[in-house]
Amino acid sequence: MTARTLLPELPAYAALAEHAKTLASASLEGLFAADNTRARAFTVSAAGLHLDYSKHRVNAQALSSLLQLAEQAGLGQRIEDLFNGAHVNNTEDRPALHTLLRASDGGAQQLRFQEVVAAKARMREIAERLHCGGHTGYSGSTITDVVNIGIGGSDLGPRLVTQALKPFHGQVQCHYVSNVDPADLLDTLAQLNPASTAFIICSKSFRTEETLANGLAARAWMLAAGASTADLDKHFLAVTTNLPAAREFGIPAANCLPMWDWVGGRYSVWSAVGLSCAIAVGWERFAQFLAGAEAMDRHFRGSEAHTNMPLLMSLLEIWYSLFFHASNHVVLPYDHSLQRFPDYLQQLTMESNGKRVSSDGRELQYQTAPVLWGSAGTMGQHSFHQLLHQGTRLCPVDFILPLTTHTGAVEQHRMLVANCLAQSRTLMVGRSLEKARAALLQRGFDDDNAATLAPHLVMPGNRPSSIITMESLNPGTLGALLALYEHRTYCSGQLWRINSFDQWGVELGKEISTDILARLAGASDGSTMDASTEGLISAFRDAQR
Amino acid sequence: MTARTLLPELPAYAALAEHAKTLASASLEGLFAADNTRARAFTVSAAGLHLDYSKHRVNAQALSSLLQLAEQAGLGQRIEDLFNGAHVNNTEDRPALHTLLRASDGGAQQLRFQEVVAAKARMREIAERLHCGGHTGYSGSTITDVVNIGIGGSDLGPRLVTQALKPFHGQVQCHYVSNVDPADLLDTLAQLNPASTAFIICSKSFRTEETLANGLAARAWMLAAGASTADLDKHFLAVTTNLPAAREFGIPAANCLPMWDWVGGRYSVWSAVGLSCAIAVGWERFAQFLAGAEAMDRHFRGSEAHTNMPLLMSLLEIWYSLFFHASNHVVLPYDHSLQRFPDYLQQLTMESNGKRVSSDGRELQYQTAPVLWGSAGTMGQHSFHQLLHQGTRLCPVDFILPLTTHTGAVEQHRMLVANCLAQSRTLMVGRSLEKARAALLQRGFDDDNAATLAPHLVMPGNRPSSIITMESLNPGTLGALLALYEHRTYCSGQLWRINSFDQWGVELGKEISTDILARLAGASDGSTMDASTEGLISAFRDAQR
Repeated sequence: MTARTLLPELPAYAALAEHAKTLASASLEGLFAADNTRARAFTVSAAGLHLDYSKHRVNAQALSSLLQLAEQAGLGQRIEDLFNGAHVNNTEDRPALHTLLRASDGGAQQLRFQEVVAAKARMREIAERLHCGGHTGYSGSTITDVVNIGIGGSDLGPRLVTQALKPFHGQVQCHYVSNVDPADLLDTLAQLNPASTAFIICSKSFRTEETLANGLAARAWMLAAGASTADLDKHFLAVTTNLPAAREFGIPAANCLPMWDWVGGRYSVWSAVGLSCAIAVGWERFAQFLAGAEAMDRHFRGSEAHTNMPLLMSLLEIWYSLFFHASNHVVLPYDHSLQRFPDYLQQLTMESNGKRVSSDGRELQYQTAPVLWGSAGTMGQHSFHQLLHQGTRLCPVDFILPLTTHTGAVEQHRMLVANCLAQSRTLMVGRSLEKARAALLQRGFDDDNAATLAPHLVMPGNRPSSIITMESLNPGTLGALLALYEHRTYCSGQLWRINSFDQWGVELGKEISTDILARLAGASDGSTMDASTEGLISAFRDAQR
Repeated sequence: MTARTLLPELPAYAALAEHAKTLASASLEGLFAADNTRARAFTVSAAGLHLDYSKHRVNAQALSSLLQLAEQAGLGQRIEDLFNGAHVNNTEDRPALHTLLRASDGGAQQLRFQEVVAAKARMREIAERLHCGGHTGYSGSTITDVVNIGIGGSDLGPRLVTQALKPFHGQVQCHYVSNVDPADLLDTLAQLNPASTAFIICSKSFRTEETLANGLAARAWMLAAGASTADLDKHFLAVTTNLPAAREFGIPAANCLPMWDWVGGRYSVWSAVGLSCAIAVGWERFAQFLAGAEAMDRHFRGSEAHTNMPLLMSLLEIWYSLFFHASNHVVLPYDHSLQRFPDYLQQLTMESNGKRVSSDGRELQYQTAPVLWGSAGTMGQHSFHQLLHQGTRLCPVDFILPLTTHTGAVEQHRMLVANCLAQSRTLMVGRSLEKARAALLQRGFDDDNAATLAPHLVMPGNRPSSIITMESLNPGTLGALLALYEHRTYCSGQLWRINSFDQWGVELGKEISTDILARLAGASDGSTMDASTEGLISAFRDAQR
C-alpha cells in the first residue's frame, strides 16, 4: 500500500478552512434569501431517493472546494477500486465486494459472481419453500416462525430489513436473537412452538461466542420438545463458511449457505445473511431489495461528483467533523418501521470508520467517525430534540421521510410528515430574542416577565439537516437507502484515509473475556488483573452463593 | 432568581484545569499500580447499587478539587432545595417534587403528599383489579392486554420499567404506542382482541398531538369491534390533569388518575404514569420499585459528598465535558431487559440539560449536556465498540451489570458478565505497539508483516468507564437505578447552572408543524416558507396523487 496524502495536506484543505470561517457566522435563511435556486441546486436524486441538502452550512464555493478535496484525494479511482475488486481492505489483503452480491452482471469478477449466482439460487429455493409454507418440521407441522441467531452484521441488517418491510410480510414471522444474555433467546422461545419453528444460525466463522451459545440452547430446546437429533435438519439452517463446525453442531452441508471473506459482516445483508428477510417477504421482493441497492451502486459508480449522492453526504460529514467540531451525526427516520435504522447505521459507520490510524498505519491527527445516533420520529421530539434545538453541541441531522404510508391512515401520516418538515425548518430558522419576547407578550406575560423569560426561548438556529425523501418505503427504496449509507461510509473512510473494512479493535476484548470467564468459573492460574476487575470478579462469585 | 457564579468563576475550576493536564497523560494502570487501595477507595454503595469508578482519570487530588467545586457551587443547598419544595424549576416558577411520589413521609409537603397518597390508593385499586384479572370488557371477557398510549415521559419510563421487570410479570401483557406514525398503533392492535384490551391515555394536558391521534384511532377500533360508546369506560383510562378534555373524549373522571404540574414528564414514572407497570407486575412490586427509588433519595439527600453516588457520577460527567472535551456519554447495560435504558436516559439527560442559557438567562460559554447513547451488551461489542476502543473520540462509559440472572441459565449469564468486565478492562489497558507486534508474531506473521500490521492493532487504552453492579435486577434495584440517574442529572444541571426541569426548545417545532400541516392538507394563507420546505411540501402533495 503506497502512502497517501492525508487530508490536511491536500490543497483544497486550506480553502475549506477559510470557507468554514465565513460560513460559521452565515445565516442559512440568508443564504436562501440570496439565491432562489438554492433548494433546487442542492437537491439530487438517485434510485428513487431524493436528497435535499440545502439546509447545510455550504454555499457554491464551499461545495466546489469540497468536490476538489474529493478529487485531490483520488476518490474517483477509489470508487472504481471498490467495484473492480482491488484490495481496498488492505490490512486483510482482500477486496470488499458487497456490491457484487446485488449485481446483475459480474463484470470482471466472473468467478466470484458465479458463486454468488449459485448461492442465490439455493437461497431462493429455501426462502420460497419457507415463505410459501412448504417446509414442515419434525411433527409434520408447517414452519410458521423463523429465528435468526446471529450478532452484529449477522443480526442488525436482517433485523432492520425484516422490520422495515413489514407491510410486505407473508405468513412466516421472523424473530431475531443476538445477545448472549440468556433472556434474549428465552423470551423469544417463550412465544414459539418447537414443532413449527426453524432456526438460522448466522456466523461466518461458526465460532461467534454469543451465536453458538444461543444456537446450542435452541438445539436443546428443540430436543427437549421431542425432536430427535435426526429431526434437527428440518429445523436448523446455517449461514457460514465453516461447514465442518456446522456439521458438528448437527447442520448438514445441504442446510448451509455460504458467506465469503470478501464481504464484511456489516455489509452482508445482501448475501445469505439476508435469508430470514427473503423468507419474510418472499424472493421477488428480496430481489427488488437487491435491485434497489444495485441502482444506487450504478449511480455511485457512474455519476459525476457534484450529483453523486453518497459522495455529497460524505463530504458533508467530513466538513462538519473537520471544520465545525461536530462529534455527532443524528439520523431520524420519520417512519416507524425504520426505528432500528440508527442501530444498523451505528455498526456500519462506527465499526467501519471508528479508527485512529490510516490504512497505511500512521496515527491520524484529526478526528474520524463521529458518533451516530437517533430514533424514529416523532418520538425523539418529546425526548432529545431539546438538545438538538437548544443544546451546545452541533449535531447535523439526516431526516428520512417516505412521502406516503402503507397503512391507509392518511391524515395521521400527514401529521408525521408535517412534524418532520417542521423539525428540519425549526433547526434552521431558530428563534431570535426579539421573537421570543414577542411570543411571550402575546401569551399575556408582562414586559418584565417576558424580558426575563425570553432568553430561555431563544433558539440559535442555523443547525444543519438533510432530508431524504422517497415516494414510499418499499423493497427497492430500502435497498437504495442502505447502499447509500454504505457508500457514504466508504467515501468518508477513503477521505479520512482509513480502511473501512477491518475491525482490529474488537479482538482484544474477546481475549480478555476468555480469561475473565475462566476466573468467574473459579479457575485461577495465579495471575491477577487490575484491582477493580479482581474486586468485581470476587463480587460476582459472592453473588452466586 | 439571584445570579449565581458560573462554573469557570469558582476557585476550584483553575485547580481542576491543572489536574486535567496532569491526568491527561497519566496511565490508569499506573494509578492502580501506585495505590493498592484504589479500587476500594473509588467504590461507593447505595440502595443496593455499587459504583466502581476507579477506572476513571481521577486521583485523590482531582477528586478533592471536584468535591470542592460542588461545595463552591452550593450543591448541598441545591440538593436540599430539590426535596424541600423550592422552586428549582424557576422559569416555570414551580418545585420539582418527583421524589415526593416515592416518599413514605411527606415532610413539609403535607398537602401535596396527601394528594399523592390518595392518587396512589386509586391507582393501586385499578392496578390490582387489572393485574388479578378482575376487570372485564364490553363482552364480559377479562382484560388480558393493556396498551399505554403516551409519548416522551408518558411512554419511555413505563415502557422501560415494564420491560426491565419482565421476570416479575403477571398475566396481563402491556404494550406501548407513542409514534404518530399510524404503523405504531396498527401493528400493535393487529395482535390484540378489542374485547380483552384496555387503553391508558397518558397525557398531562390531554392535548399531545400524537397521543390524541392514537387515542382516537384506538377508540374507533374499539367501536368498530362492536363496543358501544357506553362500553368505552370499561376500556379506556386516562392519566391527565385535564378532566374536561378526557370527558369529551369519553373517559369519565372515575377513570382518570392525576398528574401534577410539579412533576415533569421525564420524572413521572413514579406517578400514575407508571400505571401500566403496576398492572404488569402487581402493586406489591410497584411499591418495591418506589421504595428502591426512595432509598436512593435518602442516600442522595443524606450522604456526604465524597460517598454520594449521584453526585460523584455528576462530577465525572462535568470533568470529562469541561476538561477532556467529551461530547458523548455511553451507557451499556449488560442485561437484555434494560435494552431501552439508553432511550430512557436520552430524554432524562438531554431534555433536562440540553440547554444553552443559565437558569437566570445568561448564554453559557461552556458545553452542557453531552449526547447520551448506548445499547444492551454484548450486542454493541459487535457494532460500535470498535469506535469506543480505537476511535478518536473520548466516550466515557457506564457499564450496568446485575450479578445474577433470573433465567436459570447460569453459564450463559457468566459469559455475559465476563464480557462486561472484559470491555471495561480493555478500555483501560489497551494494547501497546510492542504487544500488538508480539501478538501478530505469535499468530505466525513474519517480522515485516507484523511490523506493518501492528499499528492497526494498537489500542491507546486509558479510556474511562464506571461499572454499576447490583446483586440482581429487581423492582427495588431498578427504582434505585432510575433515581440515581435522575439525581446525577440534577447535580449536573445545577453545576452547569441550568434549569433541568423546563423544555422551551420543543415548542417552536410544534407551532411550525401546525402551519405545515395545514399546507400539506392544501390550505394556503399566501405566506411562504423557505424554498426547501416549500419544495418538500409540493413533493408531498404530488406523491398523494
